[in-house]
Parts: sequence; structure tokens; C-alpha cells
Amino acid sequence: MLGAALDLFSEHGFEGTSLQGIADRLGVTKAAVYYHFHTKDEILLALVQPAIDELLMLAGEKDSGLRPQRGRGMDVAGYVDYLLRHRRVAAYLTRDATAMSRPVLVEKGAQLRGQVEAMLLGGDADDLSTLWGSATLQALAGALMAAPPDVSETWLREELTDLGMHLLAGYRKAARRRQT
Amino acid sequence: MLGAALDLFSEHGFEGTSLQGIADRLGVTKAAVYYHFHTKDEILLALVQPAIDELLMLAGEKDSGLRPQRGRGMDVAGYVDYLLRHRRVAAYLTRDATAMSRPVLVEKGAQLRGQVEAMLLGGDADDLSTLWGSATLQALAGALMAAPPDVSETWLREELTDLGMHLLAGYRKAARRRQT
Repeated sequence: MLGAALDLFSEHGFEGTSLQGIADRLGVTKAAVYYHFHTKDEILLALVQPAIDELLMLAGEKDSGLRPQRGRGMDVAGYVDYLLRHRRVAAYLTRDATAMSRPVLVEKGAQLRGQVEAMLLGGDADDLSTLWGSATLQALAGALMAAPPDVSETWLREELTDLGMHLLAGYRKAARRRQT
Repeated sequence: MLGAALDLFSEHGFEGTSLQGIADRLGVTKAAVYYHFHTKDEILLALVQPAIDELLMLAGEKDSGLRPQRGRGMDVAGYVDYLLRHRRVAAYLTRDATAMSRPVLVEKGAQLRGQVEAMLLGGDADDLSTLWGSATLQALAGALMAAPPDVSETWLREELTDLGMHLLAGYRKAARRRQT
């Protein structure tokens, strides 16, 4: 059921999808959907929760390679692996602002974004890190979405890691320049 | 009327917005909206058309600084200026996939994306340029959207140009590495 919901959310947006539409796609009655989920928000949360939990867990693990190392930023490869594991959900959330602005997600979304930016860039949040942090997350998600379907996952992992590392280096350079 | 429509599209997505909703926001009857636009697609096109026309014109001008210079890519500053001029529309289109997948936009969207990527990166399209081109467009749009409201336009212009230049340099480095 969650797969069918993600298909429809991706095609029509969160607000353009109805419980009836999800039932129709599955070939079941609306009552059958309602037996599992009472609202679209519950479905959205069920779709997104595993990715949120995993990111919070990774961020909390000292040896995961995802913790910032004295402002040097995280091991980008860990975040790329994470993105590749949650590829469809990540692509969907990047491209449907109405989903991320649902009350069930809005607080978690802001918290996660801040946490990932801090993990990636290290150090304190300021205008510059907000800009580069958001650029890095969007660039990785955009590249993931644009990746031709016939490229290998190995190729994609390497290129995305390269891209992320390059952006981190750019941020550090920009931050140094602003300090002088 | 277009301003109210863009507000609602941005808040609820294209598919979550109705002509009735636009009329309500404006405090007029649905018939009054219908007098100007018969469908939401017409409104979407009217919102996006000026930005599309301007980009096509810029891409066509030999001396605009936007033409690729022998595979060296365009003058990023020109594209950043363009983005800043069309800031709200650009932010909206980046965050609502359902708008870009409307039949009225889907062909133009693909054409424009290809053209902008070619302008930015120069040279022929391949897997690598698709990845970095999309990453560059998303990074610039993401940074634009994340920019704190109190930063000056001058600051934003400089930082976005810096970001775009850095990504182009990264692409050229990646392309050279893949050739050897």
C-alpha cells in the first residue's frame, strides 16, 4: 500500500492524491485503506518515518562517520549511501513542498535539515553555512533524481560522493575567505 | 491575479489549488477569474511564460555572456541575475514537481533544462554533464530558497555566483579525470 501511495504522491503531489485514489490504484475499497490508515498524513508519516529514524540514528552514532569532525564536516560517502537507500522517498520529498509543509512533517523537516547541514558542514549555523548546506542537500538530491536510469549504482555513488566532497571544499574555502 | 495564484500554488501545490480557491483569495467570484483564464494550466503558463521567454532570449544572444564559450561554460553571474529576477517563480517550480509535469510545461521544461545545462557546462550532454548540470541548477535554486530573509541582494548575488562557479569548476575537474 505504501508503494502505491508513494507512486501517486510522486505523480500528483500530496494534495492531489486522495485515499480513494490510493484504493483505486490498489484495486481495493476505500474502507480497506481506511482499515490501515485514517488519513493521508498517517500514510505520509509511515512512508517517511524509516528514513527519518535512520538519519537520526546515524547522526547519533559516534563512529558512524557521519559526525562532524571538528568543523571539518562529515564523511560524505555515508550520507550518499543513506540517500541511495532511501532514493524514492528522498526524490519525492525534494520535489513536493506540500508534503514537507504538512504539520506532521514540518518540525521534523526543519530539525533534520539543520542536523544534516551541521553534519555535512560542521561548525555553527550562519548565513553562509545555511546557503551552502542547503545547496549541498539540493545538489545531491537533484543529481540523484537526474541520474540516467542505466548508470550503475557504483558509478552513481562515486559521482555523488565526488559532488558532495567538492561542495564541502567550496564551503570551507568560502568560509575562510569571509573570515579574512 | 497571478500573484494570488502563485501564493496558492506555492502553499498547496498546483493540484491542491482550484480556480474557486484563487477567486476566494482575491475576494471575487469564480466567474471573474474565468473571464481571464479558463483553466489552471493557462494561469500556470502565464506565470511561467515571462521567465521562459527571457531565458530563451538570453540563450540566443551571442553577446549576453550566457553562451557557452568553447565548452568552458557560461558566465554564471548572468544566470544568477536571471534567477534573482524570477526568484519566486523559480522557487515554486523547484518545489512542485506536479507543475513541471503538466502537459503545458513538460516539453518546455525538458528543453529549457537541457539548454541551461548546456549553457552552464558547455559541450555535449553525457551522463556526467547531466548529473552535474542538474546538481548545479538544484544547488542554486536550493540556496536561493534557503537564503535568510535579512541578507542583502548583493551578498546573495555574490554567494550564488561563487557557488555556481565552484560547481562548474568541479564539473570540469570531474570531466578531465574521467577522460584520463
